[in-house]
Amino acid sequence: MASAPGPHRTIKVPKGARDFLPEQMAVRQRVFDVVTRVFERHGAVTIDTPVFELKETLLGQYGEESKLIYDLADQGGELLSLRYDLTVPFARFLATYKITNLKRYQLGRVYRRDQPAISRGRFREFYQCDLDIAGDYPCMVADAEALRVLIEVLDEFAGLSEHHRRRLGSYQIKLSHRQLLDAVLSLCGVPADKLRSVCSSIDKLDKEPWEAVRREMIEVKQLAPQTAERIGEYVTRSDAPWALLEALRADTALCCGRYGAEAALDEMQRLFEFLEAMGGALSRCVFCLSLARGLDYYTGLIFEAVLTDGNTPLGSVGAGGRYDKLVEDFCGRRVPCVGASLGIERIFSLVEEAEREWAAARNRPIRASKTRVLVAGIGRVNLTERMRLCDELWRAQIPAEFVYAPKPKMPRQLQYALETGIPLLAILGEDELAQNRVALKRLSTQQQVTVERGAAFLQQVREWLAAEEDE
Amino acid sequence: MASAPGPHRTIKVPKGARDFLPEQMAVRQRVFDVVTRVFERHGAVTIDTPVFELKETLLGQYGEESKLIYDLADQGGELLSLRYDLTVPFARFLATYKITNLKRYQLGRVYRRDQPAISRGRFREFYQCDLDIAGDYPCMVADAEALRVLIEVLDEFAGLSEHHRRRLGSYQIKLSHRQLLDAVLSLCGVPADKLRSVCSSIDKLDKEPWEAVRREMIEVKQLAPQTAERIGEYVTRSDAPWALLEALRADTALCCGRYGAEAALDEMQRLFEFLEAMGGALSRCVFCLSLARGLDYYTGLIFEAVLTDGNTPLGSVGAGGRYDKLVEDFCGRRVPCVGASLGIERIFSLVEEAEREWAAARNRPIRASKTRVLVAGIGRVNLTERMRLCDELWRAQIPAEFVYAPKPKMPRQLQYALETGIPLLAILGEDELAQNRVALKRLSTQQQVTVERGAAFLQQVREWLAAEEDE
Repeated sequence: MASAPGPHRTIKVPKGARDFLPEQMAVRQRVFDVVTRVFERHGAVTIDTPVFELKETLLGQYGEESKLIYDLADQGGELLSLRYDLTVPFARFLATYKITNLKRYQLGRVYRRDQPAISRGRFREFYQCDLDIAGDYPCMVADAEALRVLIEVLDEFAGLSEHHRRRLGSYQIKLSHRQLLDAVLSLCGVPADKLRSVCSSIDKLDKEPWEAVRREMIEVKQLAPQTAERIGEYVTRSDAPWALLEALRADTALCCGRYGAEAALDEMQRLFEFLEAMGGALSRCVFCLSLARGLDYYTGLIFEAVLTDGNTPLGSVGAGGRYDKLVEDFCGRRVPCVGASLGIERIFSLVEEAEREWAAARNRPIRASKTRVLVAGIGRVNLTERMRLCDELWRAQIPAEFVYAPKPKMPRQLQYALETGIPLLAILGEDELAQNRVALKRLSTQQQVTVERGAAFLQQVREWLAAEEDE
Repeated sequence: MASAPGPHRTIKVPKGARDFLPEQMAVRQRVFDVVTRVFERHGAVTIDTPVFELKETLLGQYGEESKLIYDLADQGGELLSLRYDLTVPFARFLATYKITNLKRYQLGRVYRRDQPAISRGRFREFYQCDLDIAGDYPCMVADAEALRVLIEVLDEFAGLSEHHRRRLGSYQIKLSHRQLLDAVLSLCGVPADKLRSVCSSIDKLDKEPWEAVRREMIEVKQLAPQTAERIGEYVTRSDAPWALLEALRADTALCCGRYGAEAALDEMQRLFEFLEAMGGALSRCVFCLSLARGLDYYTGLIFEAVLTDGNTPLGSVGAGGRYDKLVEDFCGRRVPCVGASLGIERIFSLVEEAEREWAAARNRPIRASKTRVLVAGIGRVNLTERMRLCDELWRAQIPAEFVYAPKPKMPRQLQYALETGIPLLAILGEDELAQNRVALKRLSTQQQVTVERGAAFLQQVREWLAAEEDE
């Protein structure tokens, strides 16, 4: 039955979404492997939730950002929306199964109908990698471990090579506390009903100068100029953790028993002690009153990991904090939580740059495939003979390929191996076939030996592959 | 600022979708690891595409099933739909990047607004695991490798334990060819415009008896009774590959040069030769004329992996075939493809059953976490001391945890280790702290030693963990 060629369809990727090519996926998988390894080193387990939730589950969780939620069409049945982050579904999950303790990590895609800004890494479909610890634990223990995990992930990336270190090795963890910020704002004269709104202004301090934020506080948020001035004196303060803690403790206006600053400072002190016990994690941290975090749901510690170049901040690679009321909002049961979310899309780009540079420095391609041996034929050796040898490698768990052509020329097979980074060539000629032998060639060193097929061949393959790994 | 408790929200998972708990995720990840390892052993690379595509991209690709596609709400901008499978997005991907050769695998979620049947494993959100080989290659080479990969994946699962073998070890790969089926139907008197429609009737033969299918052919598809009878004589035939091939070659009515059966049989012969060269993969196969496959886009070889219990079929665990025109439909460029898709949700359930049984047989829990050492404290040892020891383990890349309580009782810590399957306990008491030592306990053997902290401690941990792995 002859069919007319179909109408050529639109072959566009949806706006703000992306395809990933094999080389990019190889990098992404290495990034996921590192993250997963660190999360699992801390005993975290993973869960999965659907890509969509009931529209009702997400409603009213994201403040002004709610307009960016993707809804599914009403095709009958439940009204659904694509998940906007992994935190609200996690809270819904805890509520559903009445779970009160869980150290969970999750790597998943989330969706925001935002104006995409590809150059700045803002997409409509992107990954989040979160570690959250739910449970009613002693003050700051879980918080300290969440921070330690964030630091460990970043250090693990930086440790991969000099190229990775240059991009990811220099960062700071900014620490603050929502209740401390509220105390400061109350002291400065901000009324209780404007606390959250003034917080969002402060949150802009990482992108805008104090002068612009001050103007917004006065003109948009309607604060008295002297209130804004007093806020300015606090929120521009940033120092080594113990130093700022001491300074704030000595601030008798703030610590006068009226604003709740003392309890927040006690928590920070406990946190600093724990972070010091955890391998000096505190040395990576700055106590920073300009940190406010946009989301409303934080109730205690807040933090953000920022790449720096000397003193210049280069953008966030992770953030999080304590949210003790989100699960309660779903089910009425109190399940305090603290979580850290990696800026994984930014980490992907940085690792990708580093790997390109690394590969170029070693004059090797970024490998997408895991193939270790190319089974090549010369002369009149046919396809089935190459398949048979490939089969021996597959059975020995060694990734192997052959070129899909009846009698490919040797230069073409060699070229394929070089381009895709396959380290070994197992060559079958008519002589080798007749003698039950294989010529094995190691491309990086140009060594070549002819060995008997079977155990001797596999052993030589393994030996050279081990040598390649060591390089 | 005191806030009233929020309105308690609906905490329902959307219909036909699922959450996965940590133990289930551990099984799913092991399944993905096995599948990925086999795919990569064959040099396959992975790609990723968005969860949604332009509505236009999916339109008209799935015949009657198109009504099951999830659309996104029209919130301005492009009209989008959730992907229905991974094959059409793969074809769109090849067209987008003008790729003409690619051996790619993809593990991803797809969406069907079908009536869920949880007990039979039919969901609205589920995973597909596909391997597809795109490229204009010599006849049946790629097809043979796709089949070999399918067989290797199933054998790899069956090889995990006796419990896995019992569930996944007994299967058959049914083989057929669309052009051969068309030749048979033409010979029997089916007009060209009814070929696809009669194929869908034949496709029901794995669920319904011939008598029901015959009735549908006559009553619904309006075939003459004698045409249906003649079809019945062919499509009930199933035999060892070489035997049925020989029988069909000897069928002079079929192989009379008019219907194109000869070319299809030549392809099957080539395939059988290749499968024999690939480690006897052919011995797993049956040549089976009742196999028709529902989807319209197949153009050559078709296949299906069916679990069997003796002669009773227990359902499909994989299927695929050649589709040479799908990419052309997008971009006008001919890119022949062949692909195999695993019935991964069914495999998940079977592996989960096997692992539960396996764990029960060894009297161990299914482990969700990777923690190897629980750092426990006794007496007046405080939290920071346990953190410090945990930190030493983390630095040595050993997954470790401590219980988040100020001074937990020993039985509680032991209980936690037993329940979550942590094999070693590193115990700090006041004596150990004073002497810079650690008491290390191996739970499976009840061995306990006290060693010096630092290198000696880490070495003893590694030694016992290696012994645990060997069991």
